[in-house]
Amino acid sequence: MYRPQIKVFDCTIRDGGLINKHCFEDRFVRAVYEALTKAGVDYMEFGYRSSKELFPAKDFGAWKYCDDEKILEVTSGIESSMKVSIMVDAHRVKEQVFAPKDKSPVHMIRVATYVKDIDKAIDLVNRVHDLGYETTANIMAVSTEPEPELVEGLKQLAKCPVDVVYVVDSFGALFSEQIEHLVKLYQQQCPGKEIGIHCHNNQQLAFGNTIEGIIHGANFLDASLYGIGRGPGNCCLELLLGFLKNPKFNLTPILKVIQDYLIPLREQIEWGYLIPFMVTGILNQHPDFGTKRRSGPDKDKYAEFYEERLEALDS
Amino acid sequence: MYRPQIKVFDCTIRDGGLINKHCFEDRFVRAVYEALTKAGVDYMEFGYRSSKELFPAKDFGAWKYCDDEKILEVTSGIESSMKVSIMVDAHRVKEQVFAPKDKSPVHMIRVATYVKDIDKAIDLVNRVHDLGYETTANIMAVSTEPEPELVEGLKQLAKCPVDVVYVVDSFGALFSEQIEHLVKLYQQQCPGKEIGIHCHNNQQLAFGNTIEGIIHGANFLDASLYGIGRGPGNCCLELLLGFLKNPKFNLTPILKVIQDYLIPLREQIEWGYLIPFMVTGILNQHPDFGTKRRSGPDKDKYAEFYEERLEALDS
Repeated sequence: MYRPQIKVFDCTIRDGGLINKHCFEDRFVRAVYEALTKAGVDYMEFGYRSSKELFPAKDFGAWKYCDDEKILEVTSGIESSMKVSIMVDAHRVKEQVFAPKDKSPVHMIRVATYVKDIDKAIDLVNRVHDLGYETTANIMAVSTEPEPELVEGLKQLAKCPVDVVYVVDSFGALFSEQIEHLVKLYQQQCPGKEIGIHCHNNQQLAFGNTIEGIIHGANFLDASLYGIGRGPGNCCLELLLGFLKNPKFNLTPILKVIQDYLIPLREQIEWGYLIPFMVTGILNQHPDFGTKRRSGPDKDKYAEFYEERLEALDS
Repeated sequence: MYRPQIKVFDCTIRDGGLINKHCFEDRFVRAVYEALTKAGVDYMEFGYRSSKELFPAKDFGAWKYCDDEKILEVTSGIESSMKVSIMVDAHRVKEQVFAPKDKSPVHMIRVATYVKDIDKAIDLVNRVHDLGYETTANIMAVSTEPEPELVEGLKQLAKCPVDVVYVVDSFGALFSEQIEHLVKLYQQQCPGKEIGIHCHNNQQLAFGNTIEGIIHGANFLDASLYGIGRGPGNCCLELLLGFLKNPKFNLTPILKVIQDYLIPLREQIEWGYLIPFMVTGILNQHPDFGTKRRSGPDKDKYAEFYEERLEALDS
C-alpha cells in the first residue's frame, strides 16, 4: 500500500506510559526517538500534558506532563525531521500551559475526548490551533457510543479547525466491517478532514483493522513498537511499516530498538495478547477489568473471568 | 456473524504437532477432545496419517500416524457428535492404509498439496472418497503460486469429488484484499464446492483474514487453541468462537482447557507472535527460516535476521 498522504504515528511512549505511570528512562525515550527518526516515522507522541493539580508529580513519570523543556532535553543533539506530538484529555484541562508553536518542540496536540466532552475538546482545539499547532480529536471508546450522539459530535468537529478526526477502538471490540462503517461515517460527517485510526489488540485485530482503515481512506495511522500499550497494546509499528510500501520507511532500526529495548522491557511490564483482555474485547468492556484481573492471584483463571464478565452484562 | 453452514475446524493437535514431533500426551489430546466437544466445535483434526516407511515411528509421536486404534483409544468413553479428521500429504503417500469409513473413527480426510502435486492429491481424494470419507484439498503456500498454475489446479479439483477446497496461507504473508481475491477465485473455479480457510499468524492477521474469508463466503474455518501451530501459529479458536454468533458454540470450556493445558505447554514449546516469523511473513518466505533462527543463539537478533532474509531475496 503506497499513498503519499499516509502518516505513520508512533505512540510507544504515550500509550506505553499508561502501563508504567509514564516512567520511561530518558535513554529509552531517546533510543525510541532515534530509531523512529531513522525509520522515517512521521510523528512521535511523547505522552500527555496533564494537569499537575489533578495528577501530582510525585505519582508519575515525566511523560505524564511532557514539559517542553523535558522534550528538548531528551531529543537534544539528534537531528530529526520527525514531528513531535503530545496528548491532552479534553475533560482534564486545568492549569496546563501551551507555549506558542514557534517557541515549542511540539508540532501537534492531540485531544482525547469522549463524545459527551466534545465541546470541551473543541474549546481546547481552538485554543491550541490559534497557538499554531496541528490538532486532532480522538474520540475514545467509540464502540460504546450510540450512533446519533456520535454523528452529532462529528458534525460539531466538522465546523472547528481540527485537522484530523480519529476512530479510536479503545476496547479492542471492533472488527473490519465496523471499522469500514466508522471511517466512512467520519469522512461523510467531516468532509475535508483527515481521518485517523487507533486500534487496540484485544482480539489480535489491531493491525488488520488498521489495514481496513487504510483501504477506506484513513491516512493517520497509530502504532507502537512491538505493540506496547494499555492492556493488549496497539497495532505493531513493525507490522505497519512492513505493510506500507513507501520507500521512505526503513524497518531495520525498528527491529533493532525492539530487540535492544522492548524485549527486555516486556520482561518487566506486561502487554500483548492475554486472554482477560481478549474477554473484555469480545464483550466490549473496559480493559481495566482485565488489568485488574492480571494483577491478582487469579490472573490465569480465564473461564471464571469470562463467566464473571458475562454476568456483569446482565446486572 | 451467524451462518448455519459455517463449520469450525480445530487443528490444535495436527498443526501443534508440527512443533513437538506430534508427541502430545494422551491426557492432553483427551482434554482437548472433551473441551472441543463441549464447545460445539464441528471437526477436530488429530494429526497426519504419515507413512512409517518415510517417517520411522521411533522419531515421532502417535499423532504423526493417527492410527484408527489410537484415535479410538484416546476418545473412548467420551460422548461426542464432533467429527474427526486426519491429514495426509499428497506427495508423501506410500503404504498408508485407510479402512472403509464405516469401520473407522475418522469422518474426514484432508489432503495437503502443493499446486504441482494436485494430480496426486486428486488420486488420494478419489481413493478415500470411494471409501466413504468427506474430503478436502488444502493447497499449501498459495502466496508463492503463480495464478495461472493455481487456476489450472483449481479447475482440476472442480472436476473431482472433493467436498472442500482450502485457501492456505502457509507463510502468513497475505492480507485482507488478497484473501478476498483468493476466496472469490476458488469459488469461481470450483462452483458448488465449499471453501475453507487456514491462516498463519506471522503478521497477527490470522483471525482478521479468517473474518475476511467468512465475509466472502468461506464456510470451513481452521483455528487452534491459543493459536498453537507451526511458527507463529494459527487463528485462535477462542477468538473465532467469540466472533461467531451461532448459539451452539460455548466459549467457557475453551478458556478452561487453555488455562489448564495450553498455558503450561507454552512454557515448554514456543509459538505465537515472534519477530523472526513476522519477518518471514512480510517477505513471503518459509517459516522454517524463523524456526531455525529461534533455535540458535541469535534468536533475538531481529535486525540482522531481517537483513539476511532481504539479501536472500536478491540471491
